[in-house]
Amino acid sequence: MPELRKDPITGRWVIIATDRAKRPTDFVREKVEIRGSGFCPFCPGNESKTPPEILAYRKDGGQRDVPGWSLRVVANKFPALGIEGTLNRQGEGLYDKMNGIGAHEVIIETPDHQMTLARLPARAVEDVLWAFRDRVLDLKKDRRFKYILIFKNHGEAAGASLEHTHSQLIALPVVPKRVREEVDNAKEYYNFKERCIFCDIIRQELEDGVRLIAENSDFIALAPYAPRFPFEMWIVPKVHQSAFEESQKHEFEQLAIMLKDMLSRLDKVLDLPAYNYIVHTSPIPEATNDYYHWHLEIMPKLTKVAGFEWGTGFYINPTPPEESAKFLREALAPVPA
Amino acid sequence: MPELRKDPITGRWVIIATDRAKRPTDFVREKVEIRGSGFCPFCPGNESKTPPEILAYRKDGGQRDVPGWSLRVVANKFPALGIEGTLNRQGEGLYDKMNGIGAHEVIIETPDHQMTLARLPARAVEDVLWAFRDRVLDLKKDRRFKYILIFKNHGEAAGASLEHTHSQLIALPVVPKRVREEVDNAKEYYNFKERCIFCDIIRQELEDGVRLIAENSDFIALAPYAPRFPFEMWIVPKVHQSAFEESQKHEFEQLAIMLKDMLSRLDKVLDLPAYNYIVHTSPIPEATNDYYHWHLEIMPKLTKVAGFEWGTGFYINPTPPEESAKFLREALAPVPA
Repeated sequence: MPELRKDPITGRWVIIATDRAKRPTDFVREKVEIRGSGFCPFCPGNESKTPPEILAYRKDGGQRDVPGWSLRVVANKFPALGIEGTLNRQGEGLYDKMNGIGAHEVIIETPDHQMTLARLPARAVEDVLWAFRDRVLDLKKDRRFKYILIFKNHGEAAGASLEHTHSQLIALPVVPKRVREEVDNAKEYYNFKERCIFCDIIRQELEDGVRLIAENSDFIALAPYAPRFPFEMWIVPKVHQSAFEESQKHEFEQLAIMLKDMLSRLDKVLDLPAYNYIVHTSPIPEATNDYYHWHLEIMPKLTKVAGFEWGTGFYINPTPPEESAKFLREALAPVPA
Repeated sequence: MPELRKDPITGRWVIIATDRAKRPTDFVREKVEIRGSGFCPFCPGNESKTPPEILAYRKDGGQRDVPGWSLRVVANKFPALGIEGTLNRQGEGLYDKMNGIGAHEVIIETPDHQMTLARLPARAVEDVLWAFRDRVLDLKKDRRFKYILIFKNHGEAAGASLEHTHSQLIALPVVPKRVREEVDNAKEYYNFKERCIFCDIIRQELEDGVRLIAENSDFIALAPYAPRFPFEMWIVPKVHQSAFEESQKHEFEQLAIMLKDMLSRLDKVLDLPAYNYIVHTSPIPEATNDYYHWHLEIMPKLTKVAGFEWGTGFYINPTPPEESAKFLREALAPVPA
């Protein structure tokens, strides 16, 4: 008998197939392998082929837009939103629209085209997190923006159009509906219980243990109770924190280690899958609060999403999180970098 | 400058790229072509390879589960939900779950493996609609069910696992969150305006004309104002009707003609794309009402959905609906069947 489970934060019901659970090898798809052929605008020497750099980490400072960087942030050459102008909200009959104002940036995580985020040294992964923070702090000064979304598409199947490893950031003039929902539901729980729902989840998951994947001094990694996708995982800070960018130095260190570890386990268990990760954090106007708890969600791209899912937001997941957590827990931790 | 547009029913903001709009030929993907190789459980003669038929249309009645049918409905052999048992709602710490009770049926639209829904005679498409209705009316008698979802995955990229043309139906013990949202928002509009929001949209779209694709005596086909996907289209009954299954005979006739026409135009303009369609209709406990207006949404599968979309429900659509409507409007209507 399949099980219907409700995600306590979003209120979304998910069908979990329990009878014939799909194991890692049951998912047939292409490995994400780096071909490295052809011209790459993210490789050192090709700095002039991207918009000018917004931020770069270089050993000894030095000139902009030339090789020598270990990490580089540039505007997306084909941005989804434009940075210049006013919002100009207006109606169109019964419809509503505004100008597509926003920032769309690319974080090039390493100069090495052959590298993946999972295989980068933990110290370099930490630099990626610092770059996220630096950009968020800068963009928050722009009063037009209400939300900053940090995400990564790894592999073509997950939507990456360039294979050179990179993350993206989009600053938006509105709080996206799904984010609003998640934050409002967490707030409702808080108003009722006077406790953060994520803090409660952490307590229950540490006690149950069945969906726990790993733990370090500052973070836990778990398979959520009602995941939309097989092998979905969340990395959650143990101590309540509403906004990603307010994390402490030791937290960025531990997050880098945990993120590298989780991506390496995914690579091992699922044989180099495409994946997306998304940083879920509080909207800018309410960055510091007691009810929302920032976290990072990682979703390997193993199944095709079909009409049923699109139509209803009602997902069918062929692998119970207790099973996926077991596979991921038992995957050997990678050699520390 | 891209435009941010808000869908008036769901409240979802969508980024519409207006500068460098993608034309039909800009989307690179595989055509959906019927290979016809290998064993097909949906072909006549293989009736024993599916669960027994729940419904079939046969010229002269006749024996069940043997060839001679023009349309056949069977239970899904690998159902997402089980039909037997009680819901048994229960908690698990702070989580909620219930048994995965539901019906999952397959509507085999024709015995002809080489056929597509777009190329079937309009009369056969109408039979598919009657089969939807017959099954909905039967399943509505089961008090455990709160919503019945009718959808089609066409082509592997849209999630179809068998190429023999078929639709699916899932009866659910809960109203999916996205459906609940859509219905509640329509209700809120109704409470405020004392008019159905879809009826208002029909009026505005008929007046504006720019997003209108086609019109017949009972239905209009349009590109919605804030579509998530390029070339998304909606077929909406002109007269207010809250539930699909309450349509009149002349409406099923006209819907069949319109659906065939729209799918044929998609095939022509986008060169045989994979697509999903979903019937959006009222939940069973409130099937007849003044605030929700059933309709059918068709989404060709042209782009990959990436982390940004998953994370936020905030879609980037590279083709304005005014452009897609123009291409679809100008596509020659197919020769009437």
